[in-house]
Amino acid sequence: MKFSFRPVEGAFYDLFTKAAQNLVKGTELLNELALPGVDVQSVSERLTDVEHDSDQITHELYRKINSTFITPFDRADIYSLGSQLDDVMDHLEAVGNLLYLYGLTELPSLPREMHELITVLDQQAKLTAEAMPNLRSMKGLDEYWIEINRLENDGDRAYRMLLVRLFSGEYDALTVLKMKEVADELEAACDAFEHVANTVETIAVKES
Amino acid sequence: MKFSFRPVEGAFYDLFTKAAQNLVKGTELLNELALPGVDVQSVSERLTDVEHDSDQITHELYRKINSTFITPFDRADIYSLGSQLDDVMDHLEAVGNLLYLYGLTELPSLPREMHELITVLDQQAKLTAEAMPNLRSMKGLDEYWIEINRLENDGDRAYRMLLVRLFSGEYDALTVLKMKEVADELEAACDAFEHVANTVETIAVKES
Amino acid sequence: MKFSFRPVEGAFYDLFTKAAQNLVKGTELLNELALPGVDVQSVSERLTDVEHDSDQITHELYRKINSTFITPFDRADIYSLGSQLDDVMDHLEAVGNLLYLYGLTELPSLPREMHELITVLDQQAKLTAEAMPNLRSMKGLDEYWIEINRLENDGDRAYRMLLVRLFSGEYDALTVLKMKEVADELEAACDAFEHVANTVETIAVKES
Repeated sequence: MKFSFRPVEGAFYDLFTKAAQNLVKGTELLNELALPGVDVQSVSERLTDVEHDSDQITHELYRKINSTFITPFDRADIYSLGSQLDDVMDHLEAVGNLLYLYGLTELPSLPREMHELITVLDQQAKLTAEAMPNLRSMKGLDEYWIEINRLENDGDRAYRMLLVRLFSGEYDALTVLKMKEVADELEAACDAFEHVANTVETIAVKES
Repeated sequence: MKFSFRPVEGAFYDLFTKAAQNLVKGTELLNELALPGVDVQSVSERLTDVEHDSDQITHELYRKINSTFITPFDRADIYSLGSQLDDVMDHLEAVGNLLYLYGLTELPSLPREMHELITVLDQQAKLTAEAMPNLRSMKGLDEYWIEINRLENDGDRAYRMLLVRLFSGEYDALTVLKMKEVADELEAACDAFEHVANTVETIAVKES
Repeated sequence: MKFSFRPVEGAFYDLFTKAAQNLVKGTELLNELALPGVDVQSVSERLTDVEHDSDQITHELYRKINSTFITPFDRADIYSLGSQLDDVMDHLEAVGNLLYLYGLTELPSLPREMHELITVLDQQAKLTAEAMPNLRSMKGLDEYWIEINRLENDGDRAYRMLLVRLFSGEYDALTVLKMKEVADELEAACDAFEHVANTVETIAVKES
């Protein structure tokens, strides 16, 4: 049994885990939002609530960095990881917000590639939430990092095929522009999960 | 009275302050540019001059990093802060340049939300110019950081409402595309001010 | 003769050089792709192969960081440089991919400014490939950094003039949107070369 001399560290792992679990809530709400006939305003508002929770967690994390003498790893890395988890949520919330503001959910259905991107995000969120507690033991992080990168490639491919469809002439120019905004936020969210994974990798490299 | 053993440090604080004051000049020129009936070419050229001044300051800063044995904080952080202040100016100049190149100021008026974004940038620039000298004492930086982040949220909201207006059918597709470019640079400038503030926060955390 | 006590270091310089030489292959393929009457699918596929080679090199680099006790400079910087070289390739590949997917090469000719951007990228790639071996001696890196930044400014100007042309009414809205995607990837590639140069500069500053 490995005995920890630094019990205060636990608080950091808990906050990272809470932040990542909140991202799972976010992607689940996006899944709901993409269903036909959903109450878009209500789901979009719940997404905004979840985003506020993320802000709270991030601020708590920053306060803890400031008030803790010994941190489990570099302060700058804790800071990066916290703000990158927060970035993911900002993009998820933007997706919900734009779908609602632009009235895109009034279309008979969203393009299939948008659903694919949301599925990728959902998987990335779940993997991230599973990986965060492993920062303690630094075990299993390689698999997580590789899998997030693989999913990001899937997301990239879905994003490109989505653009091909948007520019195919199937939609009018303004609808294309609106959907393009949503597509960009979905893709930015996939990237943002990769940034989180890259920071975890950097931390793991330093600690190994 | 706190006695400084490292007088050369002052030069760094002065350069950061000069860089931030230059950003205030930049946002003031954007304010001018958004007025109806202004000589767009002339203001856009003055903005380019101000941008060249920023480049000068940044280069002076880099030279100083290279030629100074003891820096007031991490070289890498000084470097980041300098290049991030420079990034803000690049976005401000791009706004002026695009407004001029696309002939957008020939429209009867720019959308209200564009004015709102410029107002946010102007406030962010002034706060940043006030905060830079405080790097010396590391006092009052929390308030600055919080306020810049609050303003960035305001900017985000204005940006989204601007997109809603642009995509409402009020403008033809090419005008929408042109304004979208300008809107993106305005939003990138708001973000860039936040990046500056985040680096200041990182420095403050390390030094505290 | 300077005797190296750390022969393993050589492997890092070799991998950076290989990664940069691969970028030269990438920009050469873009040059081919922009020629009229070229077999777009075949060139685009060769570009994807070159991109896979980059991934291989990046992974080899990461493995080496993990398995090496003493690295020639900060692990985090080696990591950044590797991933930034990889980012350039991602953008180059995206250009080829989008030109093919959107059928843009079926146009009588691509806008002149796109060719200019590709020429800038080709020069940046060659300079980067020449600079990488100099990381060993840390000589001549200033000139490289300055020249990459100058080229990035050229690229920026070409990009803006390209947008002016795209929004001039010469093309229909969907073609504009497709070309805009390609233009953005070209510009992102120019920027990505600058990020590489900035990291090299950061490393040089630390080592000096």
